[in-house]
Amino acid sequence: MRSEEETRGVAKIVECVPNFSEGRRGQVIDALADAIAQSPGVRLLDVQADESHNRSVISFVGDLDAVPGAALAASRRAVDLIDMNAHTGEHPRLGAVDVIPLVPITGVSMEACVTAARALGAALWEELRLPVFFYAEAASRVERRRLPDIRKGEYEGLRAKLADPAWAPDVGEPRPHPTAGVTVVGARRPLIAYNINLRTDDVDVAKRIAKAVRESSGGLPAVQAMGVRSAAGQAQVSMNLLDYTTTPVHRAYELVQSEAARFGVDILESEVVGLIPLDAVADAARAALRLRNFDREQILEAKLMEE
Amino acid sequence: MRSEEETRGVAKIVECVPNFSEGRRGQVIDALADAIAQSPGVRLLDVQADESHNRSVISFVGDLDAVPGAALAASRRAVDLIDMNAHTGEHPRLGAVDVIPLVPITGVSMEACVTAARALGAALWEELRLPVFFYAEAASRVERRRLPDIRKGEYEGLRAKLADPAWAPDVGEPRPHPTAGVTVVGARRPLIAYNINLRTDDVDVAKRIAKAVRESSGGLPAVQAMGVRSAAGQAQVSMNLLDYTTTPVHRAYELVQSEAARFGVDILESEVVGLIPLDAVADAARAALRLRNFDREQILEAKLMEE
Repeated sequence: MRSEEETRGVAKIVECVPNFSEGRRGQVIDALADAIAQSPGVRLLDVQADESHNRSVISFVGDLDAVPGAALAASRRAVDLIDMNAHTGEHPRLGAVDVIPLVPITGVSMEACVTAARALGAALWEELRLPVFFYAEAASRVERRRLPDIRKGEYEGLRAKLADPAWAPDVGEPRPHPTAGVTVVGARRPLIAYNINLRTDDVDVAKRIAKAVRESSGGLPAVQAMGVRSAAGQAQVSMNLLDYTTTPVHRAYELVQSEAARFGVDILESEVVGLIPLDAVADAARAALRLRNFDREQILEAKLMEE
Repeated sequence: MRSEEETRGVAKIVECVPNFSEGRRGQVIDALADAIAQSPGVRLLDVQADESHNRSVISFVGDLDAVPGAALAASRRAVDLIDMNAHTGEHPRLGAVDVIPLVPITGVSMEACVTAARALGAALWEELRLPVFFYAEAASRVERRRLPDIRKGEYEGLRAKLADPAWAPDVGEPRPHPTAGVTVVGARRPLIAYNINLRTDDVDVAKRIAKAVRESSGGLPAVQAMGVRSAAGQAQVSMNLLDYTTTPVHRAYELVQSEAARFGVDILESEVVGLIPLDAVADAARAALRLRNFDREQILEAKLMEE
């Protein structure tokens, strides 16, 4: 009973980026990563541990059928090895398995990822007794779409928060797990971290451009932006593109370019930090070349990924 | 003894596009395609048979180690099933296995493809007694780089041509195979068929732009171009980009754009016909967004193709 999109013979690839509340003890971080690496049908891409946040972010990919099992295996170890009552760190957090987003990459609909996120949430409660909130595309109500809203009060405020009927968890009883708190599970578009360096060292210009570009102050939808100084000393507009199907990379580039022109400033260069989906790259080429009828299957390497 | 480029853990993918002198008898064409499809380690992508050319073009991909074996298997059948003495068709040709280009796609150097092409040529002579010319990047001398030069005189003129010491084959004796003629084997960059439609129906404008763009009349290197009318009636600059590492797609686009501006004409749209390598798409995005330090490994799907 799969949708047409999913039966075209393309590999069904999902990315999963669980965040765990441990960024200091190497053995614990290794154990979490190993649990994923040893799960069948998935591939570990990256482990980033941050000591000051006391948090690690693990990226892995695999078939939609295989990814939730790997996330569950790592969660099992996190519940065993992390005690939130002893946890300190700069990053806001609610639990040992703090958040698990599923991200559709190739041949998988957002709808299928939402369904998988909900099933994973049910399993986290059934097996590990972790109460679960669903967020982003999997949210059950609009107040639960954004992580900062769900995280308000943090781990320390969980007992009081869950007692409020408005914040009853989506799955499980309204009491935090005694050592692992609660977990937030959801589905979202891939996030693209994208920075534009300006031909000026005036950070104030970058800040004013960022204000014009970001959604929260009336700019482009699904764009977060701030003005900062780059490591090389240039003024930089540092952005998160939360949904490249809503605001593609080239549109963010063009708005920064036209806003910068108001200050007589040009773009020096831009950079993608970390990973970017092929479709987002193809969209940029499509826009620049006014490409008509360009299908990603025309990219030789994409054709090779068909099953 | 592999080069650094080939040991980065990326799949070593080569495309092979053999052309056979049979475009009418479906059973023969199927037998050739089956020989490739049944070879281990390769994947059949496309079979295009042209009746008026009486010729078929088969595209397949695979590991550098597996591709020559598949080409040899199909050549064996072609020698069995095609008699060039009975062959007629509009396209110039020299043999049953007319030409076999190897095309580096991912994780393989041109040098490695040249080496593989030379080994394949030796095998075609050893096993099938096909004399072989090497062309393009595998050519032994500059007069043999271009297919039209090697093909001059066609199958019917082969006996006389090979008797000329200047046209002694690179492998084998200077006599054509009695029924299969000779074969041309080589290595080349992927060819991108790229058309740009203009906002005019004046084909003369397209012809004048094509003349400014193509290498043969002093334009961009590794570009073939002609002015034609598109199916929809627009003036079209129809190009082959023979080496996108020499002239990338966006540079051809920009030159057509600036030449068209001389006639007060804008670009309506462009189109890629058939396949395009991921690196060529990434180059277009890189240019449009002034991307700095952008590596193809940052494209999530490309990372997934690592071994």
